[in-house]
Amino acid sequence: MEVIVPFSTDRPKSRLSSVLAPEERVAFARAMLDDVLDAVAAAGGEPRVLATDAVDLDRPVTVDDRPLTDAVNGALDTRLGADDESDGPPEPTAVVMADLALATPATLDRLFAAGRDADVAVVPGRGGGTNAFVASHPEFRVDYHGASYLDHREIAAAVGAAFETVDSHRLGTDVDEPADLAEVLIHGEGRAATWLREAGFALDASEGRVSVVRE
Amino acid sequence: MEVIVPFSTDRPKSRLSSVLAPEERVAFARAMLDDVLDAVAAAGGEPRVLATDAVDLDRPVTVDDRPLTDAVNGALDTRLGADDESDGPPEPTAVVMADLALATPATLDRLFAAGRDADVAVVPGRGGGTNAFVASHPEFRVDYHGASYLDHREIAAAVGAAFETVDSHRLGTDVDEPADLAEVLIHGEGRAATWLREAGFALDASEGRVSVVRE
Repeated sequence: MEVIVPFSTDRPKSRLSSVLAPEERVAFARAMLDDVLDAVAAAGGEPRVLATDAVDLDRPVTVDDRPLTDAVNGALDTRLGADDESDGPPEPTAVVMADLALATPATLDRLFAAGRDADVAVVPGRGGGTNAFVASHPEFRVDYHGASYLDHREIAAAVGAAFETVDSHRLGTDVDEPADLAEVLIHGEGRAATWLREAGFALDASEGRVSVVRE
Repeated sequence: MEVIVPFSTDRPKSRLSSVLAPEERVAFARAMLDDVLDAVAAAGGEPRVLATDAVDLDRPVTVDDRPLTDAVNGALDTRLGADDESDGPPEPTAVVMADLALATPATLDRLFAAGRDADVAVVPGRGGGTNAFVASHPEFRVDYHGASYLDHREIAAAVGAAFETVDSHRLGTDVDEPADLAEVLIHGEGRAATWLREAGFALDASEGRVSVVRE
């Protein structure tokens, strides 16, 4: 299954600016991307990075500088829809965000399996985002604004696509805000967790829900 | 499978005090408890509430006013350990927190299945807590302080218990803080979601991750 991984090269992870300097955010975002690409490949997916600008990678890259929704819909047009020149029903295509630092092959396997059963399978992120999906319905398109998980459920219903929700804490955790870094330190097994530890981050269990401190 | 549901009758959900009055927190906590108990029963579990004080319920209730860790370990002593008077290996026992307002029979099924395969199966909560577990190892005991998921993994290793992590956003979402209410409005299908809507809460997608507003 082809797995598109959107990646913004322009000021990535701005909501981490209170805890990471600009060049640190670039390095951390890249570590998460590499973790995601490795997990996708280990799960048998064929990753393709959909980047806003050129990026130096040993993986296939498509550059598209449009906003996320337009770029992903462009990719879906080619693979599922109007521009699909193959015969028969479209092959399922996955879109997995580049900041899912807790992604593992096993969790991606669950997503891919759900996407073979349903026309559209979505992993909601915390706060109602759409962290990952698989679609094989020719008319399904995305709109990432706001609580996009609910919007995508409605879009699927509107085009008559069978919809499934994939229940995953790992894939549901997009790393956007300082509190999310705790999840990486607790569950992460790859470059992103190592990067954080080497940058001095540690868990802080001194009050309520566990957070992070930097030494 | 017996499923113990710890429930505090004393000032529940204090971390929601910025958005809910004391009597509202009592009503909302009760709505979540009822949702959890219904989901457990629908998944084939036999729920038993482990309450800090008497509570009016049509389900079995054990009152134990000790702190959470001691009360749960007391229950495990009876079922798995020193006080277990049955022959053969202990039956798996589950402990599921009362504030998992997104629990569904399907997600609990996954937990119960994992708990039949492994000696200890844990669902980590956001921030490294232990939202639910199933244990059948006679020596496994809990310590809910801090990042208890990591501690429970270590405790299981120390007693030689096979450990499995269950990856679930629904069961990983314990409703403690105002931001968690958005998850209930997005995914909840039971009394807790209805209670919030009737209390005037709605999703607010005006900035970053979706949150809630009260009308």
